[in-house]
Order: sequence, then C-alpha cells, then structure tokens
Amino acid sequence: MSKYWSEVVRTIEPYVPGEQPQVEGLIKLNTNENPYPPSPRVVQAVSEDVMERLRFYPDPNATELRRAIARYNHLDESWVFAGNSSDEVLAQAFMAFFQQDKPLLFPDITYGFYPVYCQLFGIETVKVPLAQDYSLGLAQYRQPNGGIIFPNPNAPTGLETCLDDIEQLLSDNAESVVVVDEAYIDFGGTSAVALLEQYENLLVVQTFSKSRALAGMRVGFAMGNPVLIEALERVKNSFNSYPLDSVAQLAATAAIEDVAYFEGCCRKVIATREATTEQLTALGFDVIPSKANFVMAKPPASLAAKSVAQLLRNRKIIVRYFDKPRIDEYIRISIGTDDQMQRLIAALTEIIKAPGSAAQ
Amino acid sequence: MSKYWSEVVRTIEPYVPGEQPQVEGLIKLNTNENPYPPSPRVVQAVSEDVMERLRFYPDPNATELRRAIARYNHLDESWVFAGNSSDEVLAQAFMAFFQQDKPLLFPDITYGFYPVYCQLFGIETVKVPLAQDYSLGLAQYRQPNGGIIFPNPNAPTGLETCLDDIEQLLSDNAESVVVVDEAYIDFGGTSAVALLEQYENLLVVQTFSKSRALAGMRVGFAMGNPVLIEALERVKNSFNSYPLDSVAQLAATAAIEDVAYFEGCCRKVIATREATTEQLTALGFDVIPSKANFVMAKPPASLAAKSVAQLLRNRKIIVRYFDKPRIDEYIRISIGTDDQMQRLIAALTEIIKAPGSAAQ
Repeated sequence: MSKYWSEVVRTIEPYVPGEQPQVEGLIKLNTNENPYPPSPRVVQAVSEDVMERLRFYPDPNATELRRAIARYNHLDESWVFAGNSSDEVLAQAFMAFFQQDKPLLFPDITYGFYPVYCQLFGIETVKVPLAQDYSLGLAQYRQPNGGIIFPNPNAPTGLETCLDDIEQLLSDNAESVVVVDEAYIDFGGTSAVALLEQYENLLVVQTFSKSRALAGMRVGFAMGNPVLIEALERVKNSFNSYPLDSVAQLAATAAIEDVAYFEGCCRKVIATREATTEQLTALGFDVIPSKANFVMAKPPASLAAKSVAQLLRNRKIIVRYFDKPRIDEYIRISIGTDDQMQRLIAALTEIIKAPGSAAQ
Repeated sequence: MSKYWSEVVRTIEPYVPGEQPQVEGLIKLNTNENPYPPSPRVVQAVSEDVMERLRFYPDPNATELRRAIARYNHLDESWVFAGNSSDEVLAQAFMAFFQQDKPLLFPDITYGFYPVYCQLFGIETVKVPLAQDYSLGLAQYRQPNGGIIFPNPNAPTGLETCLDDIEQLLSDNAESVVVVDEAYIDFGGTSAVALLEQYENLLVVQTFSKSRALAGMRVGFAMGNPVLIEALERVKNSFNSYPLDSVAQLAATAAIEDVAYFEGCCRKVIATREATTEQLTALGFDVIPSKANFVMAKPPASLAAKSVAQLLRNRKIIVRYFDKPRIDEYIRISIGTDDQMQRLIAALTEIIKAPGSAAQ
C-alpha cells in the first residue's frame, strides 16, 4: 500500500491465474490448455520473413484476422472484434456495456475474472446462484439489470446452457447486453453465434487459447451486431490502438483457416474427456457432465478434494482446486492426451487405495 | 450511438493513430518507426521451436524479459514492469496513479493519447501550456496536482527536457507520481532512469517500438520503485493476466540483449537526423531541435504545412500533419534511411521551387 496508489488499486483483489510452473516431466492439467500443438500452418505463417516487418506497426484493425474469423462464422467482418486475449476483450466489453446505473448479473460460480473487472471499472453486480444441479437458473435473471454475462459452457463447472434457454434470456432482457463467454464452446457445445442476427443485444466472446491451442499467443475475439462492435472499437482505440502484434495476427489467421486440423484436435479432446469421465466415475468420482476441455470431479466420500489435489501434485500431476463454497469438494481436471489421462487415472487409483491418505 | 453503450463510450473521443497504408513503394515517415529491422537475434529467438509451446500460456510475469530490461538498466527486476506496448503501460499507470482527487498535469502540446486515457478513466486534467520556445515551462507545474506526465523528448516536438529540470519537478511534487514517457529517449536524450533510486515518485516508461525496431511486436515497459511497480501489477492482474505473448517476450528479450546492434541503429538514426535537419534548414525550414527519431519542421513562410504534407503524399512520401493550434504550421517527419531522406529532400526542393504550389 502506498500514498501514490489510486483508490481502485488500494481496494482491488486481482485475479489469480492458474500457475505456470516450469518443472521437468510435469503433467499440467490445471489451466485448460490444449494437449495438442497449434496447427502446423501457424509455424509456416510466422517463419516467412515476418520478422523484418516487425519494425512497422501492426494493422491496428487486424483486418485479415477479423476476415478469417468472419468467414469461419459466416458473418460479415463488421460483426467481428479482435483483441489481445478474450480476457482483454471481456474487460473492454465490461467498459463498453456494463458501466450502467443498474447492476450486472452473473452466476455465483463462474469465471473468476468477472468480479475483478467489476471492481476495476466500478460496476455494481448481483451474483445469481446456480441451481442445485449447477445449471444457470435462468428464471432468476428476470430482474432489473444493466447487463448479463455468463460462460457457456460455464467455468469451472463445464456445464452447457442450451440455445433455447439463451434465446429466452435474450428476449427477456432486450434492453441489456448479454455476453455469452464461449471460451470452451468448441468441445461439443452449441455456439450462440446462430442467434446473432436475431438479437442485437447479444455479444459472443471466444478465444484462440483453448480449442486452437494458442494460449501462448493471446488472441481473443467478440462477435455481435456492428453497433456493439463499434463500442468495443471505441474502447480499444482509447486504450491501445494496436493490441494485437503482427505475429499474433498471422498465427491466429493461420489457425482459424486450418479447419480440418482444428476439428481433429477437438474430436480427440472430446473423446478423451468422455473416456476420462467414465473412468473417474468407475473410481467413484462424481463428475459434472462437461462440454468443455476439463471436468469437475468430486472424489469418493472418504476423500477431500484438496488433499487429492495435493497428492496428485506430489506425483507431478497438477490439477486446479478452488477453495470456494459449493465447488470446494471438486477438483478441476484439464483434458490432456490419452497418455496423460491414463497416468492421472493410475495416480488416482493409487490415492484411493492408500487407506487414509486423503481422508476428509 | 446506441442504447447499449455505456456513458464513457458515448462521450469518449478515441485516439487516432498514424495511418498504416499498404502502398507499394511508399516512403513512410509518419509513425516514427525505425528504418532498420530488429536485431537478427530476434529472428533466431523466435524461430527456435517456439511454436510448439504456444499451446501453453506465456509466463504471466514476463520474468526473463523483465530481467533483461533490468540488467540493461542496472536495476533489480522488481523495479521493472512489462506490458503489451507502452500505450498499454501508460493506460495502466493512469489507472494506478492518476485517478486522484486532484487533476493530472500535462503539456498542452503532447502525446495525443493522454487526454484520451483521462476521458476513459474519468481523470480531471489541467493542460499546462508549453513555453514560446516549446519547452515544458516547468515553473507552471507548481500547482496542486494528482500526478504529472510528459514525454521526454516531448512528442511531437522532439524537444528534450534536461535531467536537472526533471529533478526539480520531482522534488517539487514529492506527493505525486511523475511519469516520464521516454518513448524516444534512445536517440540522444538522457534517461531519467538515473534518478529512480533517489525519487520514489518517479516512473519511467519506455518502448521497444522505436529504438529497438519492434513496433509490430507491441512491447513496452515501466521502471520505478517496487511500490509503484506493484500498483501496475495489481492493475494488470485485474485486466489481463498475460498481456505479453510468448513470442513477444522472446523477441523483446533478444532485442534488448543485442546492445551493439541497438547502439549502431541509434547512431545511424541520429546521424541521419542531424544531416536532415541541416538540409531542411538550408531549404528555409524552421526545425525544432530534436532528440527523437523525428523532426518537426516549419516550411518557409510562403508555404502551408498542410499543403506540403499533401504534395509529399502525391509523391508517395507520407509525413504526419497535426491540425492543432501552435503545431499546425509544422510537418512531423520520421527519420528514415539516408536514401529515404534524400528522396524527401529532393521532393521538398521541387515543392519549394514550383511557384504557388503550396502557398499559404
């Protein structure tokens, strides 16, 4: 704390990302990264004499990338906004749409960055409790609000909200912007992009960090009515005119254009997730049905989730544990390769068998 | 305008960056890019199997890069903060330090992004007029304030403020954070880094976009007392945990470690600037003495700056013209290669000789 700090810096509780430990031989299942590398086209795109051109500023509008995203989603490019990660795009959306007289609504169990943006930008919030089965409980979103945001599938539960429910939410809240944060949509979920033409209050946010294996490149994007896109552009151009560097623009363009590779990786992750869910269930875990590249799994009754996470760590397998009400009985496991998941299952089998090792 | 926009989006006037036209054979002297490519080490650093690793998140703390910046500046790494361009770092500094009860002071003629950040973050400002000779007029900064920021050398004048004056400013305003924006310091100016140990209220911001020829990579950084750095970290971790992608971290680290290449490029730019200044003066231009990689030049009395800029553009040479009081009689010319500047001088010679071509 310092006399030089502004009020918001004094009071804010920053987001804490999953760790990025640099340990040899680690099985890293804590930050939902893709177990497969990005498309080989990404490597090609970046190695071709791009470096010489780095002395020039990048295209501030990321035109080629936005066009490629638009093509993939059958939209006009004026419906697409790109930024330095979906976290940044979300932050910009909070400034652009949610600084209102009425509170922002989002689930009580959700992506941990939302309340942080609200603190940073002085946005009042109402946290809407998830239903007992961890579904959104959409009826509770029929209250005065200055915006709504939720991830679909939700994080960290992995549970999907169906399009019919989202459509109901959009028509119930026509005066507010509804942001559907689809970071994990490509692993079997149904995107709300299909609703964009009908609902001018819908903004869909996606990322290259998960399904396109470019977490290290930091590229995210939003899709919505051009009037919403214009608002995001205005915030962007008041903060950093060129948020995406030249290499990131090229890499992401190459990644989204390689549809076959992308679909292959997603299929593999989905298959591994389904197999892992079965094996976890067979071990006595209670697994929330996931449409994401992670699963939330509650250990058998005799074991504490926190201890299981620690015992896995002792075996060089890192999963994520959230010390928060309602989810503190679960561990969140990112879906790795089949081989990594076999080692996880073997480790969990050992842990379960060792009497008293992770007792509640 | 839309009912969905927040108040700040409705009212803000976004920054307008210099254009990035994609025209064959253009001599681009409008955005102060380096005429020389980045260090060859940058290419090496990025080509070495970095792409495979892009599926992982980058180091959120940019540790290696911050260490390299610290080494170059003879500081501990706890004195260094890195971000996605110095624009982003400046925006974060505005949030961290300048959201105060008292107004922020900055020059009336200065970097155009400052007033935009103030609008975005609701910061009250007092614009302090430059003196007649375009110097900062430091005596006027002795008024109640919640912070001070200015570029050194100033942009777009190129004029340097000497360290003695900066030191006076720091001790006169010990209760405020003073940000010295040194985007152009490496072209012959004297950095305020030397004052960091003595003044805990000093933050120095620099960029890789100019002297290190990495405008396309978007890397900027701040140096200051660890208490100030902590405030920036808190803002960063409330907005985007990983603002710098893996490639950018590697590229910038390689660039700052190649000291010999960097110094060679800076020497060439300085030599070209001095030669250009002489030639412009010989043609009747009034040139503000510059310590940056650009010069502000007022055409001979019979010519209007705006017309000169247009006539250069007709000849495929782009310079920057600011339609603002006190600087609208100047064109701002980025320093290119010797060859590019010869073509500029030849074009200006033609323009001056053609009677009435660019009359006031």
